Amino acid sequence: MSQHESTIDQLIDALRILPGIGPKSAQRMVFHLLERNRDGARRLAEKLSLAMDRVHHCKACRNFAEEDLCAVCVSEKRDNELLCVVEHPGDVSAIEQTGHYRGKYFVLMGTLSPIDGIGPSELGIDELLERCREGVTEVILAVSSSVEGEATAHYISELIKLRHIQVSRIAQGIPIGGDLELVDGGTLGHAMNGRKTI
Amino acid sequence: MSQHESTIDQLIDALRILPGIGPKSAQRMVFHLLERNRDGARRLAEKLSLAMDRVHHCKACRNFAEEDLCAVCVSEKRDNELLCVVEHPGDVSAIEQTGHYRGKYFVLMGTLSPIDGIGPSELGIDELLERCREGVTEVILAVSSSVEGEATAHYISELIKLRHIQVSRIAQGIPIGGDLELVDGGTLGHAMNGRKTI
Repeated sequence: MSQHESTIDQLIDALRILPGIGPKSAQRMVFHLLERNRDGARRLAEKLSLAMDRVHHCKACRNFAEEDLCAVCVSEKRDNELLCVVEHPGDVSAIEQTGHYRGKYFVLMGTLSPIDGIGPSELGIDELLERCREGVTEVILAVSSSVEGEATAHYISELIKLRHIQVSRIAQGIPIGGDLELVDGGTLGHAMNGRKTI
Repeated sequence: MSQHESTIDQLIDALRILPGIGPKSAQRMVFHLLERNRDGARRLAEKLSLAMDRVHHCKACRNFAEEDLCAVCVSEKRDNELLCVVEHPGDVSAIEQTGHYRGKYFVLMGTLSPIDGIGPSELGIDELLERCREGVTEVILAVSSSVEGEATAHYISELIKLRHIQVSRIAQGIPIGGDLELVDGGTLGHAMNGRKTI
């Protein structure tokens, strides 16, 4: 075809940075936008640039924020004594959507992974300990139960216990509405060990 | 939270114009881009704007093109006697990828659908008939076998036969490697009726 890659092919390539989008889906998206929603595509381009330029990290909790502090850290309605430690900003959204938590957050932006060069300083552990001095009475570790997540939780809990602050870990067990025979063995084992007297 | 919708929420909304992307996937995409690929996101924004501004329709075949004519229409290596009629630009890409077709194309950009106000003029039927005067000897209808596709194929074939040009329809039957018992009844019926003596 043409000597240079066409604008359409360049856009198909550019869309493939989105997680879960392969060449077929990317092509489908491009034709959809060109045929039916050019205004939407222009708005998307504008919002993309805007977000990449404006969104930084909250200085207190490391979550994404447009100002120095995020909306949760700024809020006076939140309980300053509770601090929930999560891996990613998406985890904050997920917990916020439950409506069950009124404390504050600290976002690690990852898990300890020496092989990838991610140590305590990359996860902001010093800032986390600093934060704990500000009247926090309980730190809730809401990290994933992967090997890296467990290692990170263990590392943080040891440091925080030294400061005589209560540390907890969110419960592991079978999901609500989960069919017992479809639950994996590891989860079921945790659920058995973590059983409660009723 | 904040009084205005945050930039992140605006971007999540903007991403939902993409086909197959719901709120969860859109949020996942936004966090992925902000955490790991801001440069890629900026490039995507640029390519989106560029494509929406530059890509128009080819004056000869109505496919997407950056110039007045698309690469296929401009090419001197293509057979001008064969004209393949398809519904969408994606169909051209699909046929081009097979490498089995060396003729030219005409893209309807839809099917006849009176209920949606799509009639012969919206599909460029006049331009198609005009095109047929330029030495075309066979028109291949490669439209889908939906009710609308069949109606469109029937309408076009009647007009073209009047001009004493051969009209064909791509074969319908079972897909290559398809398991017979998994093929739907309609397709299997077409395959039986369209059987060939070997």
